[in-house]
Amino acid sequence: MKQARVRFLPGGQEVACPSGATVREAAALAGLEVEGPCAGQGTCGKCRVRLSDPAGEPTTAEREHLTAAELAHGYRLACQVAPHDGLVRVELGWRTYRPEGKVLLSCRSGEVAVDSGVRRRTVELPPPSLADQRPDDLRLAAQLGGGTMLPRELLGRLPGLLRGAGMRLAVVEDGRQVLELGPPPGDGLWGLAADLGTTSLVVGLFDLESGRSLGVAARGNPQARHGADVLSRIQQAGRPGGATELRRLVLEAVNELARELATAAGGVPERIFRAVLVGNTAMEQLFLEVDPTPLGEAPYVGALGGGFSGAAEEVGLAAHRRARVRVFPTVAGYVGGDTVAMLLAAGMRPGSRARLAVDVGTNGEMALAWAGGILTCSAAAGPAFEGANLRDGMRAEPGAVAAVRLTDGDLSLRVLGDVPVRGVCGSGIIDLLAVLRRAGAVDETGRLRSPGEVRLPAGLARRLMETEEGRALRLADGSVRDVCLTQADVRQVQLAKGAIQAGIDLLLREAGLAPSDLREVLLAGTFGNHLDRKSARDLGLLPQVPLGRIRFVGNAAFEGARLALLNHRMEEEADRLARSCRHLELSGHPGFEEAFLAGMAFPPLEAGR
Amino acid sequence: MKQARVRFLPGGQEVACPSGATVREAAALAGLEVEGPCAGQGTCGKCRVRLSDPAGEPTTAEREHLTAAELAHGYRLACQVAPHDGLVRVELGWRTYRPEGKVLLSCRSGEVAVDSGVRRRTVELPPPSLADQRPDDLRLAAQLGGGTMLPRELLGRLPGLLRGAGMRLAVVEDGRQVLELGPPPGDGLWGLAADLGTTSLVVGLFDLESGRSLGVAARGNPQARHGADVLSRIQQAGRPGGATELRRLVLEAVNELARELATAAGGVPERIFRAVLVGNTAMEQLFLEVDPTPLGEAPYVGALGGGFSGAAEEVGLAAHRRARVRVFPTVAGYVGGDTVAMLLAAGMRPGSRARLAVDVGTNGEMALAWAGGILTCSAAAGPAFEGANLRDGMRAEPGAVAAVRLTDGDLSLRVLGDVPVRGVCGSGIIDLLAVLRRAGAVDETGRLRSPGEVRLPAGLARRLMETEEGRALRLADGSVRDVCLTQADVRQVQLAKGAIQAGIDLLLREAGLAPSDLREVLLAGTFGNHLDRKSARDLGLLPQVPLGRIRFVGNAAFEGARLALLNHRMEEEADRLARSCRHLELSGHPGFEEAFLAGMAFPPLEAGR
Repeated sequence: MKQARVRFLPGGQEVACPSGATVREAAALAGLEVEGPCAGQGTCGKCRVRLSDPAGEPTTAEREHLTAAELAHGYRLACQVAPHDGLVRVELGWRTYRPEGKVLLSCRSGEVAVDSGVRRRTVELPPPSLADQRPDDLRLAAQLGGGTMLPRELLGRLPGLLRGAGMRLAVVEDGRQVLELGPPPGDGLWGLAADLGTTSLVVGLFDLESGRSLGVAARGNPQARHGADVLSRIQQAGRPGGATELRRLVLEAVNELARELATAAGGVPERIFRAVLVGNTAMEQLFLEVDPTPLGEAPYVGALGGGFSGAAEEVGLAAHRRARVRVFPTVAGYVGGDTVAMLLAAGMRPGSRARLAVDVGTNGEMALAWAGGILTCSAAAGPAFEGANLRDGMRAEPGAVAAVRLTDGDLSLRVLGDVPVRGVCGSGIIDLLAVLRRAGAVDETGRLRSPGEVRLPAGLARRLMETEEGRALRLADGSVRDVCLTQADVRQVQLAKGAIQAGIDLLLREAGLAPSDLREVLLAGTFGNHLDRKSARDLGLLPQVPLGRIRFVGNAAFEGARLALLNHRMEEEADRLARSCRHLELSGHPGFEEAFLAGMAFPPLEAGR
Repeated sequence: MKQARVRFLPGGQEVACPSGATVREAAALAGLEVEGPCAGQGTCGKCRVRLSDPAGEPTTAEREHLTAAELAHGYRLACQVAPHDGLVRVELGWRTYRPEGKVLLSCRSGEVAVDSGVRRRTVELPPPSLADQRPDDLRLAAQLGGGTMLPRELLGRLPGLLRGAGMRLAVVEDGRQVLELGPPPGDGLWGLAADLGTTSLVVGLFDLESGRSLGVAARGNPQARHGADVLSRIQQAGRPGGATELRRLVLEAVNELARELATAAGGVPERIFRAVLVGNTAMEQLFLEVDPTPLGEAPYVGALGGGFSGAAEEVGLAAHRRARVRVFPTVAGYVGGDTVAMLLAAGMRPGSRARLAVDVGTNGEMALAWAGGILTCSAAAGPAFEGANLRDGMRAEPGAVAAVRLTDGDLSLRVLGDVPVRGVCGSGIIDLLAVLRRAGAVDETGRLRSPGEVRLPAGLARRLMETEEGRALRLADGSVRDVCLTQADVRQVQLAKGAIQAGIDLLLREAGLAPSDLREVLLAGTFGNHLDRKSARDLGLLPQVPLGRIRFVGNAAFEGARLALLNHRMEEEADRLARSCRHLELSGHPGFEEAFLAGMAFPPLEAGR
């Protein structure tokens, strides 16, 4: 049988590639994810890789997305090309998603009173005698001060444990539930907090007694091979075996991180006696294999309003089998447990100080807390802020333009990593548009002006050009092709911004507030925390408030999970928060269309300065 | 490799017998139990079988327990003899334990208000819309009127079930716990009640909605291959792998009965949504694989004071995986859940009407309820009442003398089955001794008088004889040897009776009551329900009360399990009963020795008439 071997660079992973399998499939076999929002349909053109032996004719999809020069240099689409016989080297290089280190791992610790409910103590029972024949279980219960019913496995071990150790017994409890008897497998009680993102998984290991962080690790969500966005995953879950496979992928990835963290901390996952996981509604449902199909169509209803609570063995999590696993409650189909966690971390509650929290991603979640309560909404921004849909958009990876300033009449770029410019990521696009807007190169409607129309700084003017695809602005010269911002790119950003801005506007309107009433605007999530606040506000993505009121809150979803892990009252608070939120559904909202159109436009140049 | 085949008669089971294996081991392979209180040690001589080809020399043990005539007829001890090559027929015939049909299956029904807590209903949820986006779980909870957290499996199916059936959903609940969603596997909700006896297992299937019995079945406890009594089982459990094997045996037997009953009732065990099991402390611990070793030595402490409550899948019971399985609480190491069930069934509670309940077996359990509370004790009677330790003792099986009267100066015997007399069972022994005592053939100390000493009816006198083993009384002529009662047999019965009588005496003394204060004496269990009340009382086994106050209560343990199954308040009552009992430990009790010696004697002839 014809079979090629593929070696992926720069990592050097080698894998036998079944006959006819694409490079994308081979990468999956090697445990690598090749970026591609279209999940291998050949429509997004994002999965370009470079082959040492690019045999076979390019497909129509490849001809559409790659220039002749690119094809000549061996660039192909991973979802289209199948390796030949023998050893083929595939450079994953740019545009291949390698999130490690890019994900926000910030974790404040020591700010929460540690009271997880999980505790360990050693009890010494009075020895039985003919005068005191109390059964072992009641003898133990009297010492623990409760009427707990032990699980069968622990009951089975109780007589031997007691008599093997002179009636002394180490007990691990979670509230009144006994989790373990006898010496625990190691010295500490550990807990796991996790943020199950559509793109990235962040897992942290904590000492449940001190609250100390023992390590935080992240990796790409391996479900990405079935599509970059939530909707692709939901569709995939609806296919035969799809939900099972998606669950397996995320569960194994989380378990792998848990094992890595445990090993690094000098122990085993069986020392994990509690876990709290948060994610958007679809991610939480996929993690528990709860069919997310209804999330994909109106009225967008999820199944995990109360979240989930159960034993690790029921979930399949790498932890002590009786560790309680809590999956956060959700507010709505697109306002999930991660948003609840954000609210928890940000201390959002009804009060006279109006506060807005925003997590901008493919889907933007927003929450407004004021004297009248907490209002939430979500807006489908699309993947523009993650670099998709844009000619040279990319994630915040080496080679991405991440920040832009106007210096001496020309653009100065901050590029991630010590590599040539390869594209522009979300924060770079926002900066770039803000610069162009301030310089007058983009008008309120988002139109790129020609140098003839407006007086532009010389350096900027030189970058504007007319192409087959319309007007564009050259950011950098590339070895294969230039890195540009096109008029179409500006429209994509406007669509994304319009959705977010409409959400914020409608929340404020529903609450009867003006932007100036906001005492604080909190930015959460990876994208939010890399945004330039001024650029975002000047473009209207954020409300027109003094910059001092805009605050970054880091990976607030993960932080919320951590808080609930370390303090059981925080977990209860999460339930209260989830139930007290009032959700404003934008789909079909009578004011949405108008707010969206208004939000597409850029504010007048004077605004908010 | 040399290998014999063994065919067991009368059942016809055939099995390949590994080289060197004994007939007893071959029987175990065939799923048959050969009686033997010594569990294969060769000391009890009870496992005699007849071989078609009794090759090999008899062992010392066989020569000790079998006569030359028996050996000549092919009788051997199953634990000693190994079959030769070829096909060997083994007649299990007499003394082989086949309890089917002998166990009390009596079950009163309709006397309890049925309220098991398990119920089924169909809910119809308002369809979700953009105006009502409540998540599926909260939408269901609002209808069920509770804040139940669904298990993962049910959450997983919830979205599909709701949308597949137009938001209508069948729900099976146990209290506030949801057990099943969607159509249950059949029309009825079933429950299982079981009495796990050392000797026999009784299992009943009930309709949880009507309380109707759907069938009761029994079989021998297959653990019997590891010894007839509780102590042998406890010892076996202490050997490597022993507890696991004993648990497997009883669990598989119960599951088999559950499946048979379910099939006979036209359904599957998955329709069983609740189970209640009772047994003595050791049996309950073995069922749950809770090491019973400490029960085998002072201070005889068990581990299941509170019993057990958990899901069927945790226990391994053939039922719906989430069905709650309740194993009854226990009072002491030798006053188990079966006694608690008896107290429940008998309606024992503190009150001015003093009542005594007695379950006589290898171990006798007694409970006294009076104005001062409930007192329990247990007395090791030994296996005499089950026919063991007696020359021609046997269980209540075909060929057993079950009742004895004095008619026209001679004994008249009631023999079980249409077969010649083979031996005498417990109720027969008690009758026989009462007859002999009344006739003066046995004095107060239990000595068999010679015809010269006392004037006996002629028929009776002719039966007395002097043997090598001392004085004896011939009951019947056997084809191989006579069936006799020996002086040693009388001593064995006196030891057993002495223990029970001492227990009752000490209970009364502790409560400050006289026998005449007892308004009711309840007899439970298989042996108790076959006793002649007058005989038992005249021998002193039961207190000297008018016969009208002695009442049979059938298989009260099983009945208690049934009550708790069908009414959850009965289950709670069982917990209260177990905790309100005060246990009187006879071992080491300062008054026991004296009471035991007094109890060995027979009452004066005038007493209690």
